[in-house]
Amino acid sequence: MRGDSAIAEWERYCQVPLLVASLLYLAAYTVHVLVPEVSPGWHEFWLTITFGTWAAFIIDYAVRLGLSPSRWVYARKHWLDLLVVLLPLLRPLRMVQVYAAAQLRRPHPRLSLEGQVMALTLLTALLLGYSGSLAVYRVEQGAPGASILTFGDAVWWACVTLSTTGYGDVVPVTWRGRVLAVLMMAVGVALIGAVVGVFSSWLVQSFREKTQEARRRSED
Amino acid sequence: MRGDSAIAEWERYCQVPLLVASLLYLAAYTVHVLVPEVSPGWHEFWLTITFGTWAAFIIDYAVRLGLSPSRWVYARKHWLDLLVVLLPLLRPLRMVQVYAAAQLRRPHPRLSLEGQVMALTLLTALLLGYSGSLAVYRVEQGAPGASILTFGDAVWWACVTLSTTGYGDVVPVTWRGRVLAVLMMAVGVALIGAVVGVFSSWLVQSFREKTQEARRRSED
Amino acid sequence: MRGDSAIAEWERYCQVPLLVASLLYLAAYTVHVLVPEVSPGWHEFWLTITFGTWAAFIIDYAVRLGLSPSRWVYARKHWLDLLVVLLPLLRPLRMVQVYAAAQLRRPHPRLSLEGQVMALTLLTALLLGYSGSLAVYRVEQGAPGASILTFGDAVWWACVTLSTTGYGDVVPVTWRGRVLAVLMMAVGVALIGAVVGVFSSWLVQSFREKTQEARRRSED
Amino acid sequence: MRGDSAIAEWERYCQVPLLVASLLYLAAYTVHVLVPEVSPGWHEFWLTITFGTWAAFIIDYAVRLGLSPSRWVYARKHWLDLLVVLLPLLRPLRMVQVYAAAQLRRPHPRLSLEGQVMALTLLTALLLGYSGSLAVYRVEQGAPGASILTFGDAVWWACVTLSTTGYGDVVPVTWRGRVLAVLMMAVGVALIGAVVGVFSSWLVQSFREKTQEARRRSED
Repeated sequence: MRGDSAIAEWERYCQVPLLVASLLYLAAYTVHVLVPEVSPGWHEFWLTITFGTWAAFIIDYAVRLGLSPSRWVYARKHWLDLLVVLLPLLRPLRMVQVYAAAQLRRPHPRLSLEGQVMALTLLTALLLGYSGSLAVYRVEQGAPGASILTFGDAVWWACVTLSTTGYGDVVPVTWRGRVLAVLMMAVGVALIGAVVGVFSSWLVQSFREKTQEARRRSED
Repeated sequence: MRGDSAIAEWERYCQVPLLVASLLYLAAYTVHVLVPEVSPGWHEFWLTITFGTWAAFIIDYAVRLGLSPSRWVYARKHWLDLLVVLLPLLRPLRMVQVYAAAQLRRPHPRLSLEGQVMALTLLTALLLGYSGSLAVYRVEQGAPGASILTFGDAVWWACVTLSTTGYGDVVPVTWRGRVLAVLMMAVGVALIGAVVGVFSSWLVQSFREKTQEARRRSED
Repeated sequence: MRGDSAIAEWERYCQVPLLVASLLYLAAYTVHVLVPEVSPGWHEFWLTITFGTWAAFIIDYAVRLGLSPSRWVYARKHWLDLLVVLLPLLRPLRMVQVYAAAQLRRPHPRLSLEGQVMALTLLTALLLGYSGSLAVYRVEQGAPGASILTFGDAVWWACVTLSTTGYGDVVPVTWRGRVLAVLMMAVGVALIGAVVGVFSSWLVQSFREKTQEARRRSED
Repeated sequence: MRGDSAIAEWERYCQVPLLVASLLYLAAYTVHVLVPEVSPGWHEFWLTITFGTWAAFIIDYAVRLGLSPSRWVYARKHWLDLLVVLLPLLRPLRMVQVYAAAQLRRPHPRLSLEGQVMALTLLTALLLGYSGSLAVYRVEQGAPGASILTFGDAVWWACVTLSTTGYGDVVPVTWRGRVLAVLMMAVGVALIGAVVGVFSSWLVQSFREKTQEARRRSED
């Protein structure tokens, strides 16, 4: 009990700094991938930010683990947080969580349930699509026979993969790129699952309401 | 209250003229893309129609905004209308709304709820598929290495993309064409979501009814 | 009333002959497409069967239309039957209907609701996939740049299209083949909608029952 | 009754040995496909394991059929078991069943209903994806014009097919490979159905709970 409220207080204090750190990490990774030939000074600056923000994520996770009364249960329940610490490029998922928590704290949420799920789906697609494009562009660079030649190709590939369209005009050819692609496909199927569920429920719901409204109006 | 009823009255008056204007805009855009080498007189005629109908959309939006008691709330609630004013090629979406409203005004709608959602999905697919084919054909024309060479190719590409099949025999190669493709994929996923939701609910519902009917018949 | 029972009686008498006629039509079309160089005698034999069965479909539709008290209402309600008369290759859809009706007439159906929908989905996929393969193979034969060269390629293409996978190694290149492909995609999306709906509902349902059973067993 | 409890007892005794046999069969098949040039001694060793485990599956099925009071009903109800005996590469499906049964026997299952379905979906995807990769790699080896050249290509192809993305950069070209591909697509569509159903229901459920929790907190 005491541990839980301490963790909640810690999370409230760290929320904004960690959001900034997440954006900084993404910015540093972007510079690392897209502007490889910076001057040594800048290179060190971005390297410091990369590892500084990563250290911040590790410290945050360690503190929360330390505050929890039963560490094993906490680690198992928050496995996503551990994954994010190991692979900071997945940090956007944590940002989505923070956004969802902020949305739910309001007494009168601005969006309906369906709108919230849709917004989270879009946010996840955008952030993971961006991270995935960066990562795939980096591992495919200079590979023999690569079809992902520019960052624009990587973004295009990410969109084609997330929607499971799969034209096949640009595909990863390295095994690391293919592993990233398989993860993207899995995310894509999950996101389509969310879109399908939300969209169909929202569509049917809204039509039912409009039909009832139209009937009420015709009865008056 | 007063503003709302004034808007409703305005919308009732403008419905048919705006529907005609939407079809005229689509016709003018079609001529602009598919028949580029018309005589100067016809060129001016279609240009006048393009900008005249666009002006009509802007005036309609401005009047509704002016009649609404709280403009900011109205703009936020009807964001689709603003999008349609900025990108008149998305006007078909507004036509789908008008069709849906007309359908719902009848006291005894001809189609069931599922039939209505299906009809709207089909209408959206047809209109957005047609607009998207025109737009992609225009931006891909003459691009080096383009595989969308004729308007038929563009229509074929739109169908392959909307169903997320993605053969990859014809793909956009310019960045503007790829942006259009990403929008088409998003629409495709949403439409598949609608089809999946409607189709499965309708299938299960109809089978349940038939089973009950068969049991009643066997009891007689 | 009188018309309805007369139609039901007519349908009961014609069910088996029409099923045989449907299979004969499919066999004749198969021979026509796959064995083009038969002897003149056989050619005439299969031609007679093709037009004979087609005539049977038209007569059946005409009799039912004649028996119905309100022809316009009947034609609108049974639009699928009219479509099947115009395009006898879609006849398999009517066979699926007959199978569904026979299944539902039993007082104790052998399959659960989900099993029935799944069986119908499979039957539709098999029959329409077969018809579509034949039709696409016929229109793509000899087209310049065609990638559907054998009937095996056509069947492979039909499977790839119905599942919306879309590898793109074999694609139709003629406009008639592409129209067939668009129809196949639409059928594919609808079938996936049925599979998704049935599979998920069945999965969740069966797990719920098993969980309850396991709890009951542990309470004993 | 007596037969049913005898079968249940037999299944309880055989569960662990058959699980080991399944893993051994998969290992032997893996060696057979991936390490074709082993020494004659090892070749015979793996051949013995392949046919020994297969014999174990056949004996298990025969015993259960012998114990059942009505053999025909049992065979029809457990058609998956017969399929697994004929095609032991589908054995993973039986392993998934065993895992599901073990999960459900616990009085307090560790995972929620949605978590269990998700775990089964993942397990099926992994095991069938692995078996399918091995089988496709074997039948495509040395085919003229093959694009699946290494086992890595086969795994990549399996992932692209199961998610129905279908890039088309690696595709089977032999008819046996294409039959395997059609089976993989069918499995892929079913798995996507499961993911879509589970994911959407879980998402909506969890959001509803969080919203209620947030409201309760704001009321305190």
